[in-house]
Amino acid sequence: MKKQYKKENFPLSKIRRYLEPGPIVLVSSSWKGKNNIMTMGWHIMMELSPSMIGCFITNANHSYEMIKRSGECVINIPTMDLIDKVIGIGNSHGTRMDKFEKFGLTPEESEIVNVSVIRECYANFECKIKESHLLPKYNFFILEVVAARVATSPKYPKTIHYTGDGVFMVSGKHIAFPEKFKRQNL
Amino acid sequence: MKKQYKKENFPLSKIRRYLEPGPIVLVSSSWKGKNNIMTMGWHIMMELSPSMIGCFITNANHSYEMIKRSGECVINIPTMDLIDKVIGIGNSHGTRMDKFEKFGLTPEESEIVNVSVIRECYANFECKIKESHLLPKYNFFILEVVAARVATSPKYPKTIHYTGDGVFMVSGKHIAFPEKFKRQNL
Repeated sequence: MKKQYKKENFPLSKIRRYLEPGPIVLVSSSWKGKNNIMTMGWHIMMELSPSMIGCFITNANHSYEMIKRSGECVINIPTMDLIDKVIGIGNSHGTRMDKFEKFGLTPEESEIVNVSVIRECYANFECKIKESHLLPKYNFFILEVVAARVATSPKYPKTIHYTGDGVFMVSGKHIAFPEKFKRQNL
Repeated sequence: MKKQYKKENFPLSKIRRYLEPGPIVLVSSSWKGKNNIMTMGWHIMMELSPSMIGCFITNANHSYEMIKRSGECVINIPTMDLIDKVIGIGNSHGTRMDKFEKFGLTPEESEIVNVSVIRECYANFECKIKESHLLPKYNFFILEVVAARVATSPKYPKTIHYTGDGVFMVSGKHIAFPEKFKRQNL
């Protein structure tokens, strides 16, 4: 049975909690009535507030043009239960198929952008392009997160982290040391 | 007893194996005879060959100037056994202390850059600045990895991944599906 996460709005300045540990993500995009999904492992936090993300998307990828033209995308965080779909989407190229349909994923309406979020993912971060001048040379998008919804449970999702060569690391235990940190460094 | 990894040279085009999963890293730098170390969670792979990394280092950090002026740094990957030092270094600011000495870490000679690598870390990636024009606006360095040494064992290090709020995720099990990937996507 498919996992159905119950989600709630999440503070934009806290999304590092899910991106900074480095999971593979699914990026959904939409342009001229067509949807697309790609897997992405190369992303980086760039600022907490406003919430900014950098990500590398090769221009060989159909999503590159769709995101560039629409100026929008959604970064969806899948968990271990979706690993077959993550690999399948990574293997799929081409512009004709609807990947939501092909991979049995559910498009759900976003709050702000005109791109569907993926219901089955643990978290959905709606993004708008903030800066695109690094695209020609580095295929590097700088995005601002404009809306975020995150599952209310479990507290610590089983995220998957790609290492290359067909191998994933699955997130392990979480350990908390807030008392050891200086407050401004938390 | 301190862990003593035995290391060997590692192919530059494969370093994503250790960076893409998103671990916290220790960045060592050197300028005018002084060494520094900082913790860094915001980094991204940008190209496999040449091996390029992007990283965000705030200009409030003393390392920012040292790296910018020398044009070099080393990205060292610590494992779980070093977590207290990782937190301690994250809490330490100021230019006067030698962090190698303060935190009981051993500076070891690099192969190419004029910056010490941290012996106790699992992997050491020597870097040179490739592009610095995003520094004024985004504190974003684009680096090229010019030499890499990685521990020969264990195969899968227990890396630590920061989530904010004093909480780390520790890397869990690794799962391999090379047969499910199209060759060009591995």
